[in-house]
Amino acid sequence: MEIREMLYEGKAKRLYSTDDPEVLYLEYKNSLTAFNAKKKAEMEGKGELNNLISSWIFKYLSKKGIESHFIEKINDNCQTVKPVTIVPLEVVLRNVTAGSICKRLGLEQGMKLSRPLIEFYYKEDELDDPLVLEDHALLFGWATEEDLKTMKEITLKVNDALIELFDSIDIDLVDFKLEFGKDSDGKIILADEVSPDTCRYWEKGTGKSLDKDRFRKDMGDVLGAYREIWRRLSERGE
Amino acid sequence: MEIREMLYEGKAKRLYSTDDPEVLYLEYKNSLTAFNAKKKAEMEGKGELNNLISSWIFKYLSKKGIESHFIEKINDNCQTVKPVTIVPLEVVLRNVTAGSICKRLGLEQGMKLSRPLIEFYYKEDELDDPLVLEDHALLFGWATEEDLKTMKEITLKVNDALIELFDSIDIDLVDFKLEFGKDSDGKIILADEVSPDTCRYWEKGTGKSLDKDRFRKDMGDVLGAYREIWRRLSERGE
Ligand SMILES: Nc1ncnc2c1ncn2[C@@H]1O[C@H](COP(=O)(O)OP(=O)(O)O)[C@@H](O)[C@H]1O
Ligand SMILES: Nc1ncnc2c1ncn2[C@@H]1O[C@H](COP(=O)(O)OP(=O)(O)O)[C@@H](O)[C@H]1O
Ligand SMILES: [Mg+2]
Ligand SMILES: [Mg+2]
Repeated sequence: MEIREMLYEGKAKRLYSTDDPEVLYLEYKNSLTAFNAKKKAEMEGKGELNNLISSWIFKYLSKKGIESHFIEKINDNCQTVKPVTIVPLEVVLRNVTAGSICKRLGLEQGMKLSRPLIEFYYKEDELDDPLVLEDHALLFGWATEEDLKTMKEITLKVNDALIELFDSIDIDLVDFKLEFGKDSDGKIILADEVSPDTCRYWEKGTGKSLDKDRFRKDMGDVLGAYREIWRRLSERGE
Repeated sequence: MEIREMLYEGKAKRLYSTDDPEVLYLEYKNSLTAFNAKKKAEMEGKGELNNLISSWIFKYLSKKGIESHFIEKINDNCQTVKPVTIVPLEVVLRNVTAGSICKRLGLEQGMKLSRPLIEFYYKEDELDDPLVLEDHALLFGWATEEDLKTMKEITLKVNDALIELFDSIDIDLVDFKLEFGKDSDGKIILADEVSPDTCRYWEKGTGKSLDKDRFRKDMGDVLGAYREIWRRLSERGE
């Protein structure tokens, strides 16, 4: 495989075309950003950990029947993925209140919800990724009714699969963010990454954050937490 | 009827109990506020105009079969209303893009929507009335599924009735905000006010704003616009 041009440099990853039009090369950077990149850091080894964790989780989800863009882990920082047209909506699922929803709605942190809550955010850095209604997405052409339905169904399946997974390594899955894209057949599949950058993991018993909240809230030992997630996943076996 | 104690002083109105537990006394103040009261003014005659307009519109809606808290206009600034327990959700209906939605979602002003858009905002000044999903309202106990359905149905009926009304006086109804409450029988009815403070009215042909946007955007002659709305309504006849 030959790597061609860089198509996009984001806050956490770089995306390259290859000589195969059905294959992209996704490089995980060592950058850590929060609050729409108002807070930034570089951490040696972070890209490698997220590449390991995200690859592992995409493989696990695939065994649970959930299709993603992930093809193969290539080296420390890189994986190959299928090119998709990203749906400009971030899909957040919450099992427990934490983070922005608490600030926004005046809620306590750590309230267990009676059922999973799914929220859509319009993926537009300049607007700070605003929360949107499904009707906004429909009226302004960001997704169709069918797309929204599919994304919600897959998101609930991902939640079931990840709760089971993290339960088995003594971690509560608080919430997570997914991105979806349409592949060359127009089929909606999971894209982007699933890592401690995009999920909230609370250690059972202690409640210790093992995710990007350590960076957001200056709790220290950010990479120690990412490494701990990787250790538990890899010791668990596939 | 005897007026007893003031129950609540809001940004635009004061609410009093009376000797009849089924009757409240609602006084329209001369205050004009915008952006959650970060911008404020006093305008002599404004309370009277909103009392006139709101009374007129509630009577009109009642003839169209839409029940509200409105009982009777008592004097220049006051009307009697039924006491309700306010549902802590502001219901916004948009026919055309304007105001906050444009800023929030990066949209042009003045785009005609292909169908009316209904949004719920959590009524909480301290949080700046955030946009919420129906699922937020359900999960955090602000309304039931049935309440939301009823409010949406009534809001669409109000829209049809008001479009017809304002059409007949050469005004385009861009959007409006409603509040609902539960009466002593637990029935959801329209409450609060329907006035140039809570609607966007654009004069047909010229596109001139005849509502609170004149105040928000410092366009001048705010009360002239409110007076013009009242003139057209009263000349139209009931
Ligand atoms: N399979 C894919 N095909 C095309 N684009 C993708 C794919 N997977 C992820 N992307 C997009 O590539 C970018 C990944 O880089 P990232 O650093 O996360 O960007 P951002 O700063 O926009 O979050 C994101 O914009 C994401 O939506
Ligand atoms: N019929 C009613 N019964 C009880 N409360 C009402 C009724 N109609 C309106 N209200 C409430 O009374 C207040 C009216 O005053 P207003 O100045 O608009 O307040 P605010 O500053 O909260 O918008 C609002 O909080 C409104 O929800
Ligand atoms: Mg990203
Ligand atoms: Mg009010």
